[in-house]
Amino acid sequence: MGSIGTVTPQAMHFAEPLRLQSGAQLADYTLVYETYGALNADKSNAVLVCHALNASHHVAGTYADKPKSVGWWDNMVGPGKPLDTNRFFVIGVNNPGSCFGSTGPMHANPATGKPYGAAFPLLTVEDWVSAQARLADRLGIAQFAAVMGGSLGGMQALSWSINFPERLRHCIVIASTPKLSAQNIAFNDVARQAILTDPDYHGGDFYEHGVVPKNGLKVARMVGHITYLSNDDMAEKFGRRLRNAAETDDYAFDFGVDFEIESYLRYQGDKFSEYFDANTYLLITKALDYFDPARAHGGDLTKALASTRAQFLIASFTTDWRFSPERSREIVEALVSNRRKVTYAEIDAPHGHDAFLLEDPRYLGVVRAYYDRIAQEFAGEAA
Amino acid sequence: MGSIGTVTPQAMHFAEPLRLQSGAQLADYTLVYETYGALNADKSNAVLVCHALNASHHVAGTYADKPKSVGWWDNMVGPGKPLDTNRFFVIGVNNPGSCFGSTGPMHANPATGKPYGAAFPLLTVEDWVSAQARLADRLGIAQFAAVMGGSLGGMQALSWSINFPERLRHCIVIASTPKLSAQNIAFNDVARQAILTDPDYHGGDFYEHGVVPKNGLKVARMVGHITYLSNDDMAEKFGRRLRNAAETDDYAFDFGVDFEIESYLRYQGDKFSEYFDANTYLLITKALDYFDPARAHGGDLTKALASTRAQFLIASFTTDWRFSPERSREIVEALVSNRRKVTYAEIDAPHGHDAFLLEDPRYLGVVRAYYDRIAQEFAGEAA
Repeated sequence: MGSIGTVTPQAMHFAEPLRLQSGAQLADYTLVYETYGALNADKSNAVLVCHALNASHHVAGTYADKPKSVGWWDNMVGPGKPLDTNRFFVIGVNNPGSCFGSTGPMHANPATGKPYGAAFPLLTVEDWVSAQARLADRLGIAQFAAVMGGSLGGMQALSWSINFPERLRHCIVIASTPKLSAQNIAFNDVARQAILTDPDYHGGDFYEHGVVPKNGLKVARMVGHITYLSNDDMAEKFGRRLRNAAETDDYAFDFGVDFEIESYLRYQGDKFSEYFDANTYLLITKALDYFDPARAHGGDLTKALASTRAQFLIASFTTDWRFSPERSREIVEALVSNRRKVTYAEIDAPHGHDAFLLEDPRYLGVVRAYYDRIAQEFAGEAA
Repeated sequence: MGSIGTVTPQAMHFAEPLRLQSGAQLADYTLVYETYGALNADKSNAVLVCHALNASHHVAGTYADKPKSVGWWDNMVGPGKPLDTNRFFVIGVNNPGSCFGSTGPMHANPATGKPYGAAFPLLTVEDWVSAQARLADRLGIAQFAAVMGGSLGGMQALSWSINFPERLRHCIVIASTPKLSAQNIAFNDVARQAILTDPDYHGGDFYEHGVVPKNGLKVARMVGHITYLSNDDMAEKFGRRLRNAAETDDYAFDFGVDFEIESYLRYQGDKFSEYFDANTYLLITKALDYFDPARAHGGDLTKALASTRAQFLIASFTTDWRFSPERSREIVEALVSNRRKVTYAEIDAPHGHDAFLLEDPRYLGVVRAYYDRIAQEFAGEAA
């Protein structure tokens, strides 16, 4: 089991406009993507990995010029890893609207020549999946062995199974939900308000002012980050430990940093505000809020999933309070009602929502076993 | 059972400095308070009600000139109510640092003649209790029949039992905790960062700039408010209902309001930012973070509560995820270890942390029964 080594992102331009769910369209756009492993002769071993809020096409490996630039799911994807690149051809693609290379709000709007800013059209999970499908077309992949994602990435995998049922044999949805709850939306809206009311946001046109709404992004990230961690995990990692516990056992009695948890969260917020785009953050949180495939079916998830043909692996984590196991079980129940083949793993892990990104032998073992099964299928086909 | 009717706040000035836990002192200060009912001859029927973050001395009744100004615990305190003002003499007192009348950051700093702003000293729960004790001295109340509070108010009641053990016969602690968790502190720090980074905060000296850090306060309140409501309650009240559901069944595809929950939270945030003081918000969240009576005893809550002499009613609510029942049970266990008399009620209520302020027959019934018992004690004494 080794790392995938050095990887190089690629870019593909699409001149045909992408019609969006909102009625708007994206005139033309570029998608940045990476691939790992080799596509087999009958093109049956391709796996698409969909990214969540804070990630990109850079799923695994490192960039030659940046040794620390390890992909966000490097523990999942690689030679001998659960999604084994010795057997599978894996694609990571950056969604439009992102700030990691694909066309986004910081790029020039062809209509004005200036950066899109807040004029960049709002995209939905379904729009992203449509864009991903076009990339698959260009790469000559008619059907994926699997489409896989965690959190927002899981929503994309689920959307693939609903909207392109013949184009995937397996759908792997981890730490996700069929729709956001009122509480989920509420946290997203706090984050949005923090950004929108930052004077440096300039109605989304901060690029031309040479500033970035850092404070808003920082607060947005801080509140988001709290929801990614479990209460217990935070208690264990930080508890009430004072930041300078070695030097003092007393409170500072000012509005600086007293507790380690404050220091950690502010640091995470600051770091995030230095590399993430505010318009992208707004746009992605709206895509999260809008995802609700049952909505077109009067709220009936079973009906929404009736079009699916794939087999499913659904996984959740006991301490995830952002998208709790209960939300995954809703998906499982609706699939079972449709008599789909579903494997469900509810993993007892302490790390909350973030668990889907972390090392956990039971979790990675489940995914590995599932991919072993998929590999046997196309090994059988090939034989 | 009726309302307490019209009430009038009173003010008492204290010329002696209040020494604070931080080492600083409050040179002189005024406390605003209200009383309901009549003090009996042997002064044995006095109850002190301590307020939480967003409340004041105005516990019950209404102001003559403001018919909508109903006290924050009017369902709890009044003639024939659980805390029956026909039997008890009830005191509500506004803590120093607040923005509802007692000396606070918006008042003149005697050292400069300008508003204190961020120079107002940070107060702890213990400091508030010391200030309350001085008020009790002036009112000639050597011992309260009970000291009572919910949430941050419950911390004050607990602190009374520890630091002035002979001055209360009963201690009533509702929806509270012996200390904040890392997650609690994290949410408070998000709120503080939102305020501190608002350019209109001006380092706390916004008074002289004629502005208010409204945006920061709004975001702070929004995130706080989410933690006061239960996930289930929010789902039931708001779910994913669109704000203009009568007019449209489609999303807006912009950063305005889509969902009812967004509208509700922003409204709550806006309203709050119009009447609450930013420095007070900062100060009170720090008092919450700092409260940890076990800290002086190596983290041993049993030792911290060894000094108590009161009898206790501890109550919690099943869906309160801010200060969950588990936190109340820590208090109960430490009291039981000290062989104190404790009544514990864990109330199955849907409304999260806010439940302590709401109508709930089982909850109000428990408090009523407990006060009936207290009243029998001093009725017995009097007989």
